[in-house]
Amino acid sequence: MKIFYSEGHRQHNPPFEVFDGGERVPYLENPDRMDKVLAALRKTDWAEFAEPSDFGLDPILAVHDADYINFLDSAWTEWLAAAPEAESASDKSAILPATFALRRKPRVPKSFLGRAGYYMMDLSAVIVEGTYKAALASANCALSAAQFIATQVPSTANRPQSAFALCRPPGHHAGKDYCAGYCFINNAAVAANWLSSKGKVALLDIDYHAGNGTQDIFYDRADVLTISIHADPDFEYPHFIGFADETGAGAGLGFHHNFPLPAGTDDAAYLAALDKALELIMVYGPWSIVVSAGMDIYDGDPLGKFKVTRDGIREIGERIANLRLPTAVIMEGGYANNALGKNIGTFLEAMK
Amino acid sequence: MKIFYSEGHRQHNPPFEVFDGGERVPYLENPDRMDKVLAALRKTDWAEFAEPSDFGLDPILAVHDADYINFLDSAWTEWLAAAPEAESASDKSAILPATFALRRKPRVPKSFLGRAGYYMMDLSAVIVEGTYKAALASANCALSAAQFIATQVPSTANRPQSAFALCRPPGHHAGKDYCAGYCFINNAAVAANWLSSKGKVALLDIDYHAGNGTQDIFYDRADVLTISIHADPDFEYPHFIGFADETGAGAGLGFHHNFPLPAGTDDAAYLAALDKALELIMVYGPWSIVVSAGMDIYDGDPLGKFKVTRDGIREIGERIANLRLPTAVIMEGGYANNALGKNIGTFLEAMK
Repeated sequence: MKIFYSEGHRQHNPPFEVFDGGERVPYLENPDRMDKVLAALRKTDWAEFAEPSDFGLDPILAVHDADYINFLDSAWTEWLAAAPEAESASDKSAILPATFALRRKPRVPKSFLGRAGYYMMDLSAVIVEGTYKAALASANCALSAAQFIATQVPSTANRPQSAFALCRPPGHHAGKDYCAGYCFINNAAVAANWLSSKGKVALLDIDYHAGNGTQDIFYDRADVLTISIHADPDFEYPHFIGFADETGAGAGLGFHHNFPLPAGTDDAAYLAALDKALELIMVYGPWSIVVSAGMDIYDGDPLGKFKVTRDGIREIGERIANLRLPTAVIMEGGYANNALGKNIGTFLEAMK
Repeated sequence: MKIFYSEGHRQHNPPFEVFDGGERVPYLENPDRMDKVLAALRKTDWAEFAEPSDFGLDPILAVHDADYINFLDSAWTEWLAAAPEAESASDKSAILPATFALRRKPRVPKSFLGRAGYYMMDLSAVIVEGTYKAALASANCALSAAQFIATQVPSTANRPQSAFALCRPPGHHAGKDYCAGYCFINNAAVAANWLSSKGKVALLDIDYHAGNGTQDIFYDRADVLTISIHADPDFEYPHFIGFADETGAGAGLGFHHNFPLPAGTDDAAYLAALDKALELIMVYGPWSIVVSAGMDIYDGDPLGKFKVTRDGIREIGERIANLRLPTAVIMEGGYANNALGKNIGTFLEAMK
């Protein structure tokens, strides 16, 4: 299996995030995650690593607002220069706003700190000097995987080609105009939108957390079916979106589906939801699918409350593969670093 | 002058707030502010201290959503009990959410942390065990001042009666359903709404920061004219609201006015804006006014960038007093503690 990976992620290494209660903790979405995945995949006989191509900004600006991408681009320079407005920030090692956009028609102000509070939605999408470049490299991995599955000659005897984008930072919490939950550019959305120029695409998000950014980006569209299976936002991040009755709007009505599941969800319960999702995809009839593959569904993930086992992860991979569609698998979350390599390796082995 | 004050504020004493950059700093809106004001006012021969009456919840629920007030009421108990959802918050000394309500139709989730992110808008409106009771006592001070000016027999020879509510926590950043910027219950809005049952009221906000909460609460109403003179949100907190072209909506169109001013605004520039505001009030013809009196316009305030002097503050008080209307003055911000007593004393002396 082709695996698109860039070392560019290492320049995104925030010194901390802030948890509920206002306490700094080490950044959970860290480069060590990639090292664990790389070590596991390098032990296999089927992982073929490749550098991503550079697709430029156009496919990114097709799903994100230009003002938001410009903010990411200039954020670090502005943060260091922001004076006197940012006098309060005596520690400039990481960009985090302290004020967030109010409900009821917030306006984008001119100041950097104001824009930071407008474009950043939580205390986990921390921006440092290398964040934007790392996010671009990550999006290019996703686009390279999309291009790969789009250009392979189908082999009638075998399963259609799949490819894996080993993306870091992840993407599915990033909306049209905001970063959130470790995510800055929505890699899976960028890939799915790119693939949609060739026909209907389905995007299946199996990360533990609701794919709020993906929902935000495709909510009005019928040409990309988006489905997210996740922890119920009534108890879990991202809290405000991802409920079962959110099914799209306008032309996109009926083309988004959320499967919120309770804490403690085990293999059987998870697979039952997956089967419903896969049936929706089969009915939709896409020519290809994008999978937002978060491994934080795994029992014991520090940010998760599901009880999905490694056997369950293998079964999820096999059932998705049985769709027999060209598939771009995009790395999302998963924070049980010591299990992450084996988990994603097991998932991909079932998909190949 | 009657001064309504409650010691109840002391139970609201958060151990820290979080500034831009994710750094904990000592809570600037602290009980010492009141001690400085008390010391200054006790030296005068005109300050008559009185305990506030208890007005119950009805006048508060007339301007705030019940769900939000219920959240404030139960927040501390829920925060301590929140498990396992709040496992991440190893330090439970103060309530601060890490995720804020997303744009585009956020829903109120069931979990405590989700509701905290929905009802709390920044990292300065920190909730501790005594916050709700302190906020109720503060609102009762404002209501007592309102009641006092409403029930005094007018004296033809003298200026109409004014009263001062020495409120802490302050209120003008608290909106219908959110706390923000050290504010939980919008004391001035509660008082103005209470007074509006007796006829048209004007609310003049002279705090350095835009009175976003007051704007939010009265934006659709014509029976309370709201005017805020403040630092331009294009460079200053609350960033997303308080621009000059926000003038009300629906029945309230034309009954809200913002005067955003640049950094460095001095006495002359401030008084020019004030004169325009006072003219709007005279044209409106209210029977009474409420003044949100923040002293952070003072040159040297740690959270302000205006250059208003103590003479300027006296002049502001005199010009407002020249309206010759019953006036309830409500304490808002002001963080240059060592100057705060003299500043508010000077302002009130000019008003009496």
